[in-house]
Amino acid sequence: MHFTSEQRLDDGVVERAFTLGDIPGILWTPVSASAAAPTPLILLGPPPLGLRKAYPRLAARARHAAADGFAAATIELPGSGDRPRRPADEQARAELRRTLEAGEPVGDELIDALILPLVDQAVPEWQAALDALLALPEIGGPVGYSGGVISIGTRLAVVEPRISAAVLFAGSFVPRALFEEARQVTIPLHVLLQWDDEGNDRQAALDLFDAFGSTEKALHANMGGHTGVPQFAGEAAAQFFTRHLKTSDRRATSRR
Amino acid sequence: MHFTSEQRLDDGVVERAFTLGDIPGILWTPVSASAAAPTPLILLGPPPLGLRKAYPRLAARARHAAADGFAAATIELPGSGDRPRRPADEQARAELRRTLEAGEPVGDELIDALILPLVDQAVPEWQAALDALLALPEIGGPVGYSGGVISIGTRLAVVEPRISAAVLFAGSFVPRALFEEARQVTIPLHVLLQWDDEGNDRQAALDLFDAFGSTEKALHANMGGHTGVPQFAGEAAAQFFTRHLKTSDRRATSRR
Repeated sequence: MHFTSEQRLDDGVVERAFTLGDIPGILWTPVSASAAAPTPLILLGPPPLGLRKAYPRLAARARHAAADGFAAATIELPGSGDRPRRPADEQARAELRRTLEAGEPVGDELIDALILPLVDQAVPEWQAALDALLALPEIGGPVGYSGGVISIGTRLAVVEPRISAAVLFAGSFVPRALFEEARQVTIPLHVLLQWDDEGNDRQAALDLFDAFGSTEKALHANMGGHTGVPQFAGEAAAQFFTRHLKTSDRRATSRR
Repeated sequence: MHFTSEQRLDDGVVERAFTLGDIPGILWTPVSASAAAPTPLILLGPPPLGLRKAYPRLAARARHAAADGFAAATIELPGSGDRPRRPADEQARAELRRTLEAGEPVGDELIDALILPLVDQAVPEWQAALDALLALPEIGGPVGYSGGVISIGTRLAVVEPRISAAVLFAGSFVPRALFEEARQVTIPLHVLLQWDDEGNDRQAALDLFDAFGSTEKALHANMGGHTGVPQFAGEAAAQFFTRHLKTSDRRATSRR
């Protein structure tokens, strides 16, 4: 992990760009974080449109996390941003465009081609990022994942024991195989669903929520399109992380 | 409205039993409520098992509301508690028992017979209670409804303009006619669904949530049976009321 820039944002947050091998990433830490007071970490899974385009929303989530006493970090997804395109992705995306334009249903094979290779490559990269981030003296545990591509969050929740709780966003295609993996998830989950998201298969999202094996899982469905998650829903997700990642702080989330 | 008893609970809440005609009810107010500082009101719709049996849960919700600066009130449902049984109800309930014991599906006609007369009688009673409660100098607006029988809450939200926001509990039978009324609801809604509630038709609950016409509506689905709403879900419902009924207090629910 190699830091390439550092700036102090005006609300007491330090933003550092880094590379991990050839993968770009960003780390946000509250200025109060230090080896003497390491902070818990939230991994911010980005949407698959590249960190540059997603930056405003990611930075807003990171500042919110920092205000709650968390570090936050994200890395570029395979094939997104300036990372090399993968020919198989391009082919699957072209097929998706053709299918949607033709008004045809998106079949299981196409969903598999769009998502499974992405999950297979991204999950080990997030694990490597987690190794590097937890090696920093100012970062401690526990770790949460708050993610844009729900299949990546699902796989991570199964294979990565260092992740203690996850906020997942319903709204991307989910391969059938991931429904099976969902049954193996046991960590507390907070799932956000935009009820009228035009690009989202609502029934698939409800089925996936049903499939998760966690004994504590909550579905919060709200109105508005894909990017229209209301502010109060963001607050509820933040409270979920505070409840699960800041054990010493639990009292603060009970009676006010 | 005639008060029949008054006691001060140990956490600064005054509990008064009352009768409204022949309908028994309970009013809880924070001791700080007075004509000089009237409090907003939350109507607590009880489950149809009688106020005596439901008292512990209702009183807990009322104390929580009082701690947030709300008065809370409830009245006995028609045919519940010590109120006279209605022969048609008894017949419908016997038919329901027979149907469930035979493992048959509960048909639309039976659902209508179980719920529609209850809604038709209960809603004007709640409106009369609201008249009486808002005439008390220590009670002001706005008014929220937090209810046990979702069809009563739905009808009230349509016909009673003094109700500004509602928390509804999915989990009771809903007549087809109420789905039509749901489309006319426009106030902010917060709907709680116990995902694995054995007595609940989950799909009907999701369909009803979809039908509500409100532009702000949120569905919070949690694990656990009918009465197992987790504490954090109760907190989220309380925050919903604070956001909508205590306008001067809005800042307190945004960034912490």
